[in-house]
Amino acid sequence: MTDFCKLVNMPENDKQGLSVVTCTAPVNIAVIKYWGKRDEDLILPINSSLSVTLHQDQLKTTTTVACSRNFQQDRIWLNGKEEDINNPRLQSCLQEIRRFSRKRRNTGDSTSDASSVSHKVHICSVNNFPTAAGLASSASGYACLVYTLSQLFGVESEQLSAVARQGSGSACRSLYGGFVQWKLGTQLDGKDSLAEQVESESYWPELRVLILVVSAEQKSVGSTSGMHTSVETSQLLKYRADVVVPSRMEEMIRVIRERDFPAFGELTMKDSNQFHAICLDTYPPIFYLNNMSHRIISLVHRYNQYYGETRVAYTFDAGPNAVIYTLQDHLPEFVQVVRHFFPPEVNGEEFVKGLTVCSADLSEELKRDINMEPTPKGIRYIISTKVKH
Amino acid sequence: MTDFCKLVNMPENDKQGLSVVTCTAPVNIAVIKYWGKRDEDLILPINSSLSVTLHQDQLKTTTTVACSRNFQQDRIWLNGKEEDINNPRLQSCLQEIRRFSRKRRNTGDSTSDASSVSHKVHICSVNNFPTAAGLASSASGYACLVYTLSQLFGVESEQLSAVARQGSGSACRSLYGGFVQWKLGTQLDGKDSLAEQVESESYWPELRVLILVVSAEQKSVGSTSGMHTSVETSQLLKYRADVVVPSRMEEMIRVIRERDFPAFGELTMKDSNQFHAICLDTYPPIFYLNNMSHRIISLVHRYNQYYGETRVAYTFDAGPNAVIYTLQDHLPEFVQVVRHFFPPEVNGEEFVKGLTVCSADLSEELKRDINMEPTPKGIRYIISTKVKH
Repeated sequence: MTDFCKLVNMPENDKQGLSVVTCTAPVNIAVIKYWGKRDEDLILPINSSLSVTLHQDQLKTTTTVACSRNFQQDRIWLNGKEEDINNPRLQSCLQEIRRFSRKRRNTGDSTSDASSVSHKVHICSVNNFPTAAGLASSASGYACLVYTLSQLFGVESEQLSAVARQGSGSACRSLYGGFVQWKLGTQLDGKDSLAEQVESESYWPELRVLILVVSAEQKSVGSTSGMHTSVETSQLLKYRADVVVPSRMEEMIRVIRERDFPAFGELTMKDSNQFHAICLDTYPPIFYLNNMSHRIISLVHRYNQYYGETRVAYTFDAGPNAVIYTLQDHLPEFVQVVRHFFPPEVNGEEFVKGLTVCSADLSEELKRDINMEPTPKGIRYIISTKVKH
Repeated sequence: MTDFCKLVNMPENDKQGLSVVTCTAPVNIAVIKYWGKRDEDLILPINSSLSVTLHQDQLKTTTTVACSRNFQQDRIWLNGKEEDINNPRLQSCLQEIRRFSRKRRNTGDSTSDASSVSHKVHICSVNNFPTAAGLASSASGYACLVYTLSQLFGVESEQLSAVARQGSGSACRSLYGGFVQWKLGTQLDGKDSLAEQVESESYWPELRVLILVVSAEQKSVGSTSGMHTSVETSQLLKYRADVVVPSRMEEMIRVIRERDFPAFGELTMKDSNQFHAICLDTYPPIFYLNNMSHRIISLVHRYNQYYGETRVAYTFDAGPNAVIYTLQDHLPEFVQVVRHFFPPEVNGEEFVKGLTVCSADLSEELKRDINMEPTPKGIRYIISTKVKH
C-alpha cells in the first residue's frame, strides 16, 4: 500500500462530535491501457492494465473527510463546488467502506470509534491539476476518497483496491506506488480483479515523466461513456482485449523488470496508439488526439529516429495532453527540443513546472534532421515529474 | 467495362509515323477500404474492397499516349511535369500491355497496326483535381494509362483489370462504373484478383456525392508505404482483413442492392473509421485525419442524430478531405449546413463546384441542436458530383 499522507487526524471533540482526516493520493498513467468493462456495476475490465504512479509533489488529489453526529446528510465538494452525493459510484464507495467498517467492528477488530460509522460525512476533495483534461483525476480522486474514508472508519488496506475500483476502475492502481498492474481477474463477483505492485517506486529511479499540457478544455466524450460505446460497437476491441493485451502485459512486466527503456518506450507508444485506434473504431468515433497531439507524436518519432533508438516515449489518455516517459540523462535535451519546436509565450520561465530541468544546447544537425515547422504556443506548459517514491 | 471517352484516335500519318489516343478515366471512392497487400510486386490485397465510381464531369484523369517509330524512348508527363518512366509500377503496366498486344498479334486477333507495339510511347496525363490530396489520383491515373495504352495497342478489355491493378491496386476499380468490388482472389499469380461491377451506375440514381476539400497539402505518408508499414506492424490489421471485412463485403453488397441508404451510410462510416484506426495502430502511427476532418465527422453525426436516421455519410481516404454520400433529397439542406458551420470566404459563389445544388433554408432548431461553433474557412470548397453514368 502506498504511503498516503494522513495530514490531519483530529481526535473526536465531544462538543462537536467531529472527526476529521485528510489524505492525498497520486495520479497514475497507464502504459497498457484499460478500455472496456465486462461488468458495468462492479467495474470489471475486459483486459488487465499496467500503470506508473506519479510523484505527489507535482500531481495529487487531497481529500478531507469530516464525520459528525451533527451532520444531517452525506455531502461532497469537488474543487470547491458541491456535487451530487447520490452519484452511484460515490454511493458504492461509501456503502462498501461502511459495510467493511461494520463487519470489522462486529468481529471486534476495529480500533476506531464505534459510533462514527453511522455518522454522516462531509467530503472535500481538491486536485492540484485541471480536472477532466485527460489527466486521470478520477483515479487519484477515488483512490484518495476511499483511502481517507478507510482511515476514518478503520478499514483494512487490503480491502481498498476492490472498493476504489468500484469508484473508478483505474483508481485501484493509484493505491500503490511504482509500477502497478490491475489484473482483470476471473471471478464473477470481481473479488480477484485487483491492483498489485509489479515493482516499487525505487526500482527504476532514472525514469522521468513530462506532461505536455496542450489544452485545458473539457474532453469531448467522458471515458465512462466512451468505453461503454467502444464495447458496444468496436469490432477490434474484443480482439485487442482477448489476444493483444495478454501478451503485451507479460512483455511490459518483463521490460520493466529489465529496465529496458527502448522496449518499454516502444510498447508504451504502441499501446497508446492502439487505445486511440479503438476509439476511432468506435461508432460514432471518439477523438481524443488533436493536431497538436499528432505533432508531439511526430516529434517524438523524429527525435528517436535521429538517435536510432527509443529515448523518449509518449502516451495519451482520454484527452489531447501527452505524457512523456524518458530517462533522466535524455530529459534536458528533449525539453529543449520541445521548447524549440513549440516556442512558448514570452514568459518562458513558467513553461516548465515541477522538478527542475537542466538547460541543454541543441545541435543544428538535430534541429535540421527533425525538420518540423515550429508551432508557437502549441504547448501551454510542461509538468516535470517522476515516479512516486 | 466503363465507357471511357476515346477523344482522339488519329490515324497513323506515314510521314510522322505517329499514332495518338486520348482517353479519360474516373475516380473511385471506396466504401469498404483496401489497406494492405499480401504480395507487393503483383499488388494483391489482404482483403476485398468495394467502391463507387464517380462521374467524370467533375473528377477525371485525361491521358494522351502518342506512339511513333521516331521516338527514342518511353517518356511520361504528369500534370505538365516530366516524371521518371522507370518507375517500377509504370514499367509493369507498359510491359504487361505490350506483352498482351504481342500475344494477340501472334494469334492473329489484333486489328491494330502490327508495328506500333515495338514503338516507344510518349504519355501525357492530367487530373482536373489536386494530386496526392487523398483523392485517389493514382487510381484514375493508372486506369486511364492502361486503358489508353490498350486502345493504342489493341488489348482486350477483360485483361485490363489485372494490368491496372499492377499500377495501383485501386485502379482496377476505376475501370468500371457504378458499384465495383475488387475481389482479393486466392491464386498466387493474382489472376483472380480482379475488379467486377456489383451494380451499374443507373442502379441507384438518387445517390449523390460531395467532396469537402479541407486542404490541398501533400499528404504526410503515401498510401503505398503506409499500407506496407501497417501490414508489418499493426496487430489489428490481420483481424480486420480476415474476420471483419469478409462479412462487411457481403453486407455492403446487400445494402447497395436494397438501396438501403441508412445501412449503406452507417457501414461506409464504420469502415472509414476502422481504416483510420488501423493507420493509428501502425507503428509509427499514420494520421490522415486532422482537426477539420474530426469536425466534419462530428457534424455528420449530429446532423443524422437530429433526424434520428443516417441521411449523410462520410468516408476518408489517405488524406483529410471528406467524401460525403447522401441522397439527392437531403443534399441541399446538408450543403447549407456545411455552409453554416464552415462559413466560406467572401466569394461564396465559388464554394460549391460541379453539379448545381439548390438552395435550402435551415431551421433555427436544427442549427441549435447541432450545437457546434462555426469554423470559418475550415472547408476550402465543395465538389458536388454523383455516381458515374
